[in-house]
Amino acid sequence: MSNNQELLITPIGTIRTPYGQKFAVPRQPGLAPHALGVIEFFKPYGAIEAFGGLEGFSHIHILFVFDKAPYSKFHATVRPPRLGGNTSCGVFASRSPFRPSRIGLSTVKIHEILKENGEVKIVVLGADLVDNTPIIDIKPYIPFVDAIPDAKGGFASEPPKQYPVIFSKIAKEKLADLGERRIKACEETLSQDPRPAYKDENDDKVYYALIYNRDLMFVVKNGVIEVLDVIKRGEPSC
Amino acid sequence: MSNNQELLITPIGTIRTPYGQKFAVPRQPGLAPHALGVIEFFKPYGAIEAFGGLEGFSHIHILFVFDKAPYSKFHATVRPPRLGGNTSCGVFASRSPFRPSRIGLSTVKIHEILKENGEVKIVVLGADLVDNTPIIDIKPYIPFVDAIPDAKGGFASEPPKQYPVIFSKIAKEKLADLGERRIKACEETLSQDPRPAYKDENDDKVYYALIYNRDLMFVVKNGVIEVLDVIKRGEPSC
Repeated sequence: MSNNQELLITPIGTIRTPYGQKFAVPRQPGLAPHALGVIEFFKPYGAIEAFGGLEGFSHIHILFVFDKAPYSKFHATVRPPRLGGNTSCGVFASRSPFRPSRIGLSTVKIHEILKENGEVKIVVLGADLVDNTPIIDIKPYIPFVDAIPDAKGGFASEPPKQYPVIFSKIAKEKLADLGERRIKACEETLSQDPRPAYKDENDDKVYYALIYNRDLMFVVKNGVIEVLDVIKRGEPSC
Repeated sequence: MSNNQELLITPIGTIRTPYGQKFAVPRQPGLAPHALGVIEFFKPYGAIEAFGGLEGFSHIHILFVFDKAPYSKFHATVRPPRLGGNTSCGVFASRSPFRPSRIGLSTVKIHEILKENGEVKIVVLGADLVDNTPIIDIKPYIPFVDAIPDAKGGFASEPPKQYPVIFSKIAKEKLADLGERRIKACEETLSQDPRPAYKDENDDKVYYALIYNRDLMFVVKNGVIEVLDVIKRGEPSC
């Protein structure tokens, strides 16, 4: 079989999230439920009529572009963090960004549908997307077809392990102006252990996770993630 | 906000299904569970290594192109069959084909992963896609993030009503060579009532649904779908 069709897709909007870079973005949606994201739409897609009826749904599917993951050539296999980073699996058995379509799928909870000046913004919870990711579609989550509780999840059958997170005194002080919800979101995000999958459990490295425009400097000791310091890079985007 | 990014997507394959045209395609996946579909991949995407690990998953998300639905201009609202065909809702509160991305999402059960001559084909159950629809991605369904049983489904909270289906003697005879499973799939498909949503409950029209390359001629009387005759157009594709 050969292929003779191409599809040109124009994003309908973008999402603002706490995550300034790929590093530390939760590897599945919902893992940092206190992290709000805001979907903003390009004209004319944000028209209020385009969302009529959405208020009855609690969740949406987001289709987005993995625009931070360079992709030039098809690779049949990937090494997902879930498999420890050294073991490979088929790209179509994974949700890896390095896939031919370059399209990601994330299912998130609707927190609020904002309407301002005839335009809609959707505030969502727990999005696993980098800030400013292009959004190409929003679809309502329909439980009777989308929720398959007895489905088998292969090597991703369980949520990933979470780590306890502690903040140094100075880190706490420097994060205080973010407010409780955002600090909780930082904690939830770091508890996923953002380090590359192939790390040692206890390495000596210092890592920086850019969340809410703060560089959170952390180390991992004896299975505990410790935020040592915080460097402010700007204001939070959401 | 304005938009300056476009994404060119190349399909990775196509799906063979029983449905020769849009008319009579089930309006959600899983409604005709005896209908097998076969996803065939363009080279090099069908390479066996690209699917390693998929055998542990029971379901996949299919991203596909609504290539049978013409789309030239953004319409903020649609009239989904679910709302009776006369009431509109926002396009982003619907799973309508008439959407800017032209991308559909369907979650289906894996029936079998076939391997022939170094190439994979995936046999799935209950696909709600027209035969030969371009496929742009396959992703494993991960229950702990994708299955949200307490999600609210808005105006699509319940599966659509199903109708009893009866076959005339001559229709039965003409369908016999399809075999039991395919005949069951025809019944499940018709039981969704493929008529346009704005029909009268009891109209006098004769309809034709092209399933397995047979035109199933049917009428609806007193809430019962009756297949009067069958016209063979060719061999079934799957």
